[in-house]
Amino acid sequence: MSKTKITFLGGLDKIGKNMLVVEHHNSAVIVDCGMAFPDDEMYGVNTVIPSFEYVRKIKPKIQAVFLTHGHEDHVGALGYLYREFDFPLYGTGLTLAFADAKFSGAQKKDLITRAVTPGQIYEFGDITLEPFNVCHSIPEGVGLIIRTPDALIVHTGDFKLDAKPLDGKPTDLNRLRALNNVDLLLCDSTNADQEGWTVSENDVGKTFDKIFQKSAGRIVIASFSSNILRMQQVLNTAQKYGRRVAILGRNMENNFHIAKDSGFITCPDGAACSIEQARSLPDNKVVVLTTGSQGEQMSALTQMARRRYEKMKLKKEDTVIISASPIPGNEKDINDTVNNLCRIGVKLYFDHVKEIHASGHACAEEIKTLIKTVKPRFFIPVHGEYKHLYVNNLNAQKAGVRCQNTFLFQNGDQVEIGHDVCQLCGHVYAEPVLLDGNYGADPREPMFDERHQLARSGMAVITCVLNKAGQLSAGPVLNGFGFLYRKEQEQFLPVFNDLIRQLAEELKGSDREQKLKKELEKFVYEKLRRRPIILVNILEL
Amino acid sequence: MSKTKITFLGGLDKIGKNMLVVEHHNSAVIVDCGMAFPDDEMYGVNTVIPSFEYVRKIKPKIQAVFLTHGHEDHVGALGYLYREFDFPLYGTGLTLAFADAKFSGAQKKDLITRAVTPGQIYEFGDITLEPFNVCHSIPEGVGLIIRTPDALIVHTGDFKLDAKPLDGKPTDLNRLRALNNVDLLLCDSTNADQEGWTVSENDVGKTFDKIFQKSAGRIVIASFSSNILRMQQVLNTAQKYGRRVAILGRNMENNFHIAKDSGFITCPDGAACSIEQARSLPDNKVVVLTTGSQGEQMSALTQMARRRYEKMKLKKEDTVIISASPIPGNEKDINDTVNNLCRIGVKLYFDHVKEIHASGHACAEEIKTLIKTVKPRFFIPVHGEYKHLYVNNLNAQKAGVRCQNTFLFQNGDQVEIGHDVCQLCGHVYAEPVLLDGNYGADPREPMFDERHQLARSGMAVITCVLNKAGQLSAGPVLNGFGFLYRKEQEQFLPVFNDLIRQLAEELKGSDREQKLKKELEKFVYEKLRRRPIILVNILEL
Repeated sequence: MSKTKITFLGGLDKIGKNMLVVEHHNSAVIVDCGMAFPDDEMYGVNTVIPSFEYVRKIKPKIQAVFLTHGHEDHVGALGYLYREFDFPLYGTGLTLAFADAKFSGAQKKDLITRAVTPGQIYEFGDITLEPFNVCHSIPEGVGLIIRTPDALIVHTGDFKLDAKPLDGKPTDLNRLRALNNVDLLLCDSTNADQEGWTVSENDVGKTFDKIFQKSAGRIVIASFSSNILRMQQVLNTAQKYGRRVAILGRNMENNFHIAKDSGFITCPDGAACSIEQARSLPDNKVVVLTTGSQGEQMSALTQMARRRYEKMKLKKEDTVIISASPIPGNEKDINDTVNNLCRIGVKLYFDHVKEIHASGHACAEEIKTLIKTVKPRFFIPVHGEYKHLYVNNLNAQKAGVRCQNTFLFQNGDQVEIGHDVCQLCGHVYAEPVLLDGNYGADPREPMFDERHQLARSGMAVITCVLNKAGQLSAGPVLNGFGFLYRKEQEQFLPVFNDLIRQLAEELKGSDREQKLKKELEKFVYEKLRRRPIILVNILEL
Repeated sequence: MSKTKITFLGGLDKIGKNMLVVEHHNSAVIVDCGMAFPDDEMYGVNTVIPSFEYVRKIKPKIQAVFLTHGHEDHVGALGYLYREFDFPLYGTGLTLAFADAKFSGAQKKDLITRAVTPGQIYEFGDITLEPFNVCHSIPEGVGLIIRTPDALIVHTGDFKLDAKPLDGKPTDLNRLRALNNVDLLLCDSTNADQEGWTVSENDVGKTFDKIFQKSAGRIVIASFSSNILRMQQVLNTAQKYGRRVAILGRNMENNFHIAKDSGFITCPDGAACSIEQARSLPDNKVVVLTTGSQGEQMSALTQMARRRYEKMKLKKEDTVIISASPIPGNEKDINDTVNNLCRIGVKLYFDHVKEIHASGHACAEEIKTLIKTVKPRFFIPVHGEYKHLYVNNLNAQKAGVRCQNTFLFQNGDQVEIGHDVCQLCGHVYAEPVLLDGNYGADPREPMFDERHQLARSGMAVITCVLNKAGQLSAGPVLNGFGFLYRKEQEQFLPVFNDLIRQLAEELKGSDREQKLKKELEKFVYEKLRRRPIILVNILEL
């Protein structure tokens, strides 16, 4: 039996919270530690992170956390992991700079980081990791060549095959071609169900150029704040057309400074300006680069679209470019922003225009090209919903991997890997942890059912005091929340109150509250066709 | 000033609840009366319908409701309209058959319906309507040629330009070409932002054929229950490959019978069977045609995907085809079904396969072709979100309509139409009516804010009784709903109870409950970072 084991702690059910552990004997390395956005029905939840239960279990073996790149779905849960653990943190310079924002001041003091270089080999006991360049929508992304005494594994990280990437660093197919007898390929599946090839970042620049050329008013561009090369393209195009760029949004500003300080953005003096400075410039000298491409409620773009942004009022003559694709779950909010912009009547470029945005993830043909380069014996698709993984397995089969050597695993699955083996060998707890305020909840908490019922039909609270003779001495009081519409209140409150008064005195016994509750539920459903939560408090003196 | 007026009561903000009124002097006709699905954030709402306030106002003028076709977004609100009104109802035979299901038994008794024929002219005072054939994803759809003394208007209804429609009834471009001096085109915008041409229904049949050819196990096909021609294709392909078709789902069964009875489906004896009969057939003799293409919770497909459908357990050898596109808002539920199916490991064909489904709505090139045929002076895009209307205006401009003659109107807008005029002339109340149980709510009801707060953070109810001396004589009792997670209950309940006990006796004055509520809100936020609704009931003896 092979001693190499991969445990998937995230990334195999939804887009986001990517995290896995590679183990061999007494050595283990964590690869990535990302967050995910909550689903709409996870009421009250802000963020979703992987469970660290398995990490707790094998803590002594873990020698490092190794990051593939700086996106939230790969680094966003680090702050939570490092509340409990203090593993050395590995990543490229820019990746570590992005990850830095995840840690508190206290955490940073004790944090051991190591900036890595593609092509170098990093040893963690029995396991070695060699990062290799991948092209993605953030600079300095890497994939990993993972070696153990009994397996050679390639992990693509997030990648695309852009033949002419802006930073001159394509996905390093040459390095992969030089490998022999790769046992397993772990492959990004985000765009696996998209045919053909992903748009090149270069083409987005050309689209910007065309739009700038014909725009007389101000130009507002919304994009992902981590997309440094997109930022560079905006700066370049603005400069070419004599416009200055105002950068809006906390993340956009932060990342601009990170990238500028670490040399990933070239921004000549005067190319950027504040929004206040922009207001004193003629309209045709202004570009605004902002967050809000995901319809985030508090972002400048969302507020502008709602005509609620004081610092800048959009006009019909303005041009708005949404240079991003929706992260699953954000479609509705983005739609609202786009619809609001249409209502204002600005000139609008969004996803109805090709090459307004380039995804960072490989489409089917790119994936097949990479698979044919690596020629792995086994194939495990990662980073996607099941449907993405399913389609990516079809891609692998078309690229020559044998059907029975492609797998669809689930979070928590443990897989044994060797030269001639790839098989499920165990399962650990890996349910998502749902962060609600300070608390990390299990998705099966009954709380969520209660919140769903409250959301659907609200709550009615009935309170009264009975004296020793069983007569009402105070109340009944009926308080409703999310329960009665305004017009219903006049109509139904007296009826409900009469019934409660009558029943409270009639009903006897210790289960009186339960009986009253049942009667009311029936009555409310008959009158309103709704099922609120009903709380009956009968206090006895 | 022209006396012709169009009032848009729905269809211009979201997909769904299509309804407009054409008026001239003392005559008026309602075109369509559809429903829409609620947005996710409309907690507790089942269905959204147009407001009938304007209908109430001009009731005496209204001579008919004229239906373009039988889809829910065009007929789904009829039952609510006819609770108050009894206008004669016009539509083609199949459209009336679909509409029939919207009415109660009592309503049906009084209902005056008139089956219309394309090419005939129907007079309503000053207004005449001539329906013309359109090809759509339901048979017997029509567009309308609307004439008043001062305007000639074409309304496309929902349409596509399928050159070889299965029922041999293409969109009647010849009739439209023969019109001269069309003042206004009202044009379907649902797919306006999709390039090129919509897939032909014929090609879907070819895809089915290919899949049937290579499938050895059972074949499950999910589609829209109103898509009669798709149903026919399933029956035809099944017959060719010697399979019998079990039809699952109430709507699918109902519509199958409506279509069969009215001659729109040909189904030889023995072609269909029950699911029980199907179970006794070999797998390669079975097709199951089911609802659930939208991820509907109770549908057979959704239950099968969750392994909870008793009558049929899916196996790896089965093939599942999802032959539908998502209605906006259903993406998440469909995704869940697809992901669950991937997990079971069936052979799956969904939207990653081209020509697995054909939309009933024209894409950009079809729309431009129709516009060039009609050559309207003015253009108003309908049936879509603002972004669809926005892009459809661009289509119109590319097809030769002058930019200033294209318009983006909103629900409630009233537009005056004449030979040389198309302009906003008023606005009426047209907010959506949100049906929650028996009640039709205004979207601005404070109820919805309460339900949102309840969904996010739940509710805490504190009850106690104070005697005349201001001392606790019963309680305090704290009841939480959606408020504390299980682990939090042990930790925080005693703390909260202590605080409440202390404060209840300390605080004086008539605003005591308010003060206690404020203190608790502060305390809860500090401890939990959550903001539940807090209700304090202090009963005094």
